[in-house]
Amino acid sequence: MSIFSDLRVSDVRFPTSRAFDGSDAMNPDPDYSAAYVELVTDAGDSGHGLVFTIGRGNDVQVAAINALRDHLLGRDVEATLADLGGLSRELVGDSQLRWLGPEKGVMHMAIGAVVNAAWDLRARREDKPLWLLLAELTPEQIVDLVDFRYLTDALTRGEALELLERAASTKEARIAALKQEGIPAYTTSAGWLGYSDEKLVRLLHEARDEGFEMVKLKVGADVDEDVRRMRIARETMGSDFPIAVDANQRWDVADAVEWLERLAPYDPAFIEEPTSPDDILAHAAIRKAVAPLRVATGEQMQNRVIAKQLLQAEAIDVLQIDASRVGGVNENIAILLLAAKFGIPVCPHAGGVGLCEMVQHLAFFDAAAIGAEDPRRFVEYVDHLHEHFTDPVTVESGHYRAPSRPGASAEMHPGSIADHLFPDGPVWKDPFYPAAPAVVPV
Amino acid sequence: MSIFSDLRVSDVRFPTSRAFDGSDAMNPDPDYSAAYVELVTDAGDSGHGLVFTIGRGNDVQVAAINALRDHLLGRDVEATLADLGGLSRELVGDSQLRWLGPEKGVMHMAIGAVVNAAWDLRARREDKPLWLLLAELTPEQIVDLVDFRYLTDALTRGEALELLERAASTKEARIAALKQEGIPAYTTSAGWLGYSDEKLVRLLHEARDEGFEMVKLKVGADVDEDVRRMRIARETMGSDFPIAVDANQRWDVADAVEWLERLAPYDPAFIEEPTSPDDILAHAAIRKAVAPLRVATGEQMQNRVIAKQLLQAEAIDVLQIDASRVGGVNENIAILLLAAKFGIPVCPHAGGVGLCEMVQHLAFFDAAAIGAEDPRRFVEYVDHLHEHFTDPVTVESGHYRAPSRPGASAEMHPGSIADHLFPDGPVWKDPFYPAAPAVVPV
Repeated sequence: MSIFSDLRVSDVRFPTSRAFDGSDAMNPDPDYSAAYVELVTDAGDSGHGLVFTIGRGNDVQVAAINALRDHLLGRDVEATLADLGGLSRELVGDSQLRWLGPEKGVMHMAIGAVVNAAWDLRARREDKPLWLLLAELTPEQIVDLVDFRYLTDALTRGEALELLERAASTKEARIAALKQEGIPAYTTSAGWLGYSDEKLVRLLHEARDEGFEMVKLKVGADVDEDVRRMRIARETMGSDFPIAVDANQRWDVADAVEWLERLAPYDPAFIEEPTSPDDILAHAAIRKAVAPLRVATGEQMQNRVIAKQLLQAEAIDVLQIDASRVGGVNENIAILLLAAKFGIPVCPHAGGVGLCEMVQHLAFFDAAAIGAEDPRRFVEYVDHLHEHFTDPVTVESGHYRAPSRPGASAEMHPGSIADHLFPDGPVWKDPFYPAAPAVVPV
Repeated sequence: MSIFSDLRVSDVRFPTSRAFDGSDAMNPDPDYSAAYVELVTDAGDSGHGLVFTIGRGNDVQVAAINALRDHLLGRDVEATLADLGGLSRELVGDSQLRWLGPEKGVMHMAIGAVVNAAWDLRARREDKPLWLLLAELTPEQIVDLVDFRYLTDALTRGEALELLERAASTKEARIAALKQEGIPAYTTSAGWLGYSDEKLVRLLHEARDEGFEMVKLKVGADVDEDVRRMRIARETMGSDFPIAVDANQRWDVADAVEWLERLAPYDPAFIEEPTSPDDILAHAAIRKAVAPLRVATGEQMQNRVIAKQLLQAEAIDVLQIDASRVGGVNENIAILLLAAKFGIPVCPHAGGVGLCEMVQHLAFFDAAAIGAEDPRRFVEYVDHLHEHFTDPVTVESGHYRAPSRPGASAEMHPGSIADHLFPDGPVWKDPFYPAAPAVVPV
């Protein structure tokens, strides 16, 4: 028997706002950061997880993760890893900590990082990439991971089981195909606000040359400017190439409708985050008003209860999960099952610090064991900060390749952590150490 | 000119779980706590605010408040107090900190405590109780306090202004009446799970003898037991006395409907928190299924966007604001205005640490300047921990008396703070110092 002997938490920040290379309508100067977790056992191995933040407040996130120490230290590792549904429910159900949410914000993201670190450790011990470990579980084992509280008016355990059993017959074939073909990625690299027209056109050409089959533009600051950039993008890419737009929560309902009527002639693939991530009814109203334009959201969706309502209210066409926003792998499985029940495709959010690395496992698991066989689930991709991870994503010809190394791909290089510790790491003590990295925001 | 010279934050915890005198279905062992804020000026005065928590994680809340220091220190006091709508928007709009919510959970409650401390200071400087200061503002000044972002599909600035202007004609008379009559309180003292039948009956008699015109029972752990206790309460109080029930988020939709069909014959005044505070659609479904039984929620409602949707979806009959859950006085004004627009009465949540003290100001302001002239807005009352506040509530004959001292009533005695500092205060070092207080949970 081994026990958890330490929960190490580091405040890691990249000074991305120093060399800011793009911007969106709500996040003008992010310092991409991670509240980074190492869940250590006395057997000498460890699991890794993180909460992505954009700078100030990363210390608050660190404090929240530390508040979970007593749940982990001294705990039996094997028993815990054998019942990660149980760990997840215990952390979410701590009645005193629950008051700080419930199930949302800083405390809930902290739980997510710890749960994800435990999954990383389990996948390492089973010598499998996380997505494959999850895909190879039985339907019964998968539903045991999920907390159905507050979900049963939309999805019962029995319905989830049926859904997984239906998908099971094609699972092996899907896994083989995913290993061969990967999952298509899309890129936001061309679309930041403030780029010159020349740069926009050049980056759009590059995106297509690199094999990406969708691109995304940021919008929301100025409608005339957005229409102009969208027209250029459409002319550059031709009439059939999917071009999504992303407003980063900038609008009220009337703004969104007005703006999207102006953009509609250029046929956006979807509008992402038109308004508050909490506003189910506003998303539904916008979707109804701008149909057939598709509405997407989810990167800042706080938990499965909001996901459920977005689906029940027919508020979205595309659900965008995030690996570090909700309570970890377990809650994201609940959300994937909900999306499958409602027939809504999941196109994960990524970028930031380690979000591509972590969320690809959920996308491959969804494709292998849950969601529709349509492979076009388009995972977001940003080519930034991957060099700090020991198992960085591989994107080739515009596709995420299936992760093959054991674990959940969230481990950072010790040197990267040490360099970027806030506020005492050398990057923060010396503005010239090392060259500030190029930056692409969320 | 004076500036803010310090933001002092204290981790204050009362060991209420040691002598636990009641319980609800979700919060079995709270240690009532406060992340307590003193916003200090170089002129020597200060404003006071707090976030109420129930124990573990109070340190996370302290860290979140400390993350706001840079927004306050060195800032011009007079200019800040003259534009508290501006302060509120600046704190909520900090793009890096916003990522930790947005506008929910630990970070948002931290903003609420700081905004409330600033209001306390302003009320002290204007030598008025907060409720009267707010009530005497012009409609224009009041709407300037509100952030209408994400609200305009339900309430525009213009509509809010009209609503306030309509109420203004009767404001003086209302204020006079409120000073005379107060606002009715209701009590949960009789209704905790686990009390013997004899104690239940005795406390119900006491509640009526003390002048309370409504009582509330906790439910949600066992339906047969709940029906039995409700029947005893109904027989004790007679057919006309309002008896509310509170499930503390315990149910899914089907559970709630089943349970409430069993309780309906005993005519509950309302059902509080039947399910997740995030679940607008579930509240709407429950309300429709159990009508005419009234549905109430709001004490853990994260922000004005959820409040708006609960109203839009016709999900509730009673809105229960909390003084320390959302982003402070400003956001609560937005919520009061939304409730008035939809004609839904506001019956504030209280209890905990200082919640009665703080929320009474919002109730009196609502009654004076916004809401319907019907005085029966029933503020919750729990007779517990008031002795630690310098301006404790006065409840007489079952009514909150209008606060008359300058400020927002959130200031704690320095000795109470020092005694209960966690983990190093004498109460936590020595389990016999002083006698553990009696406890009544949320």
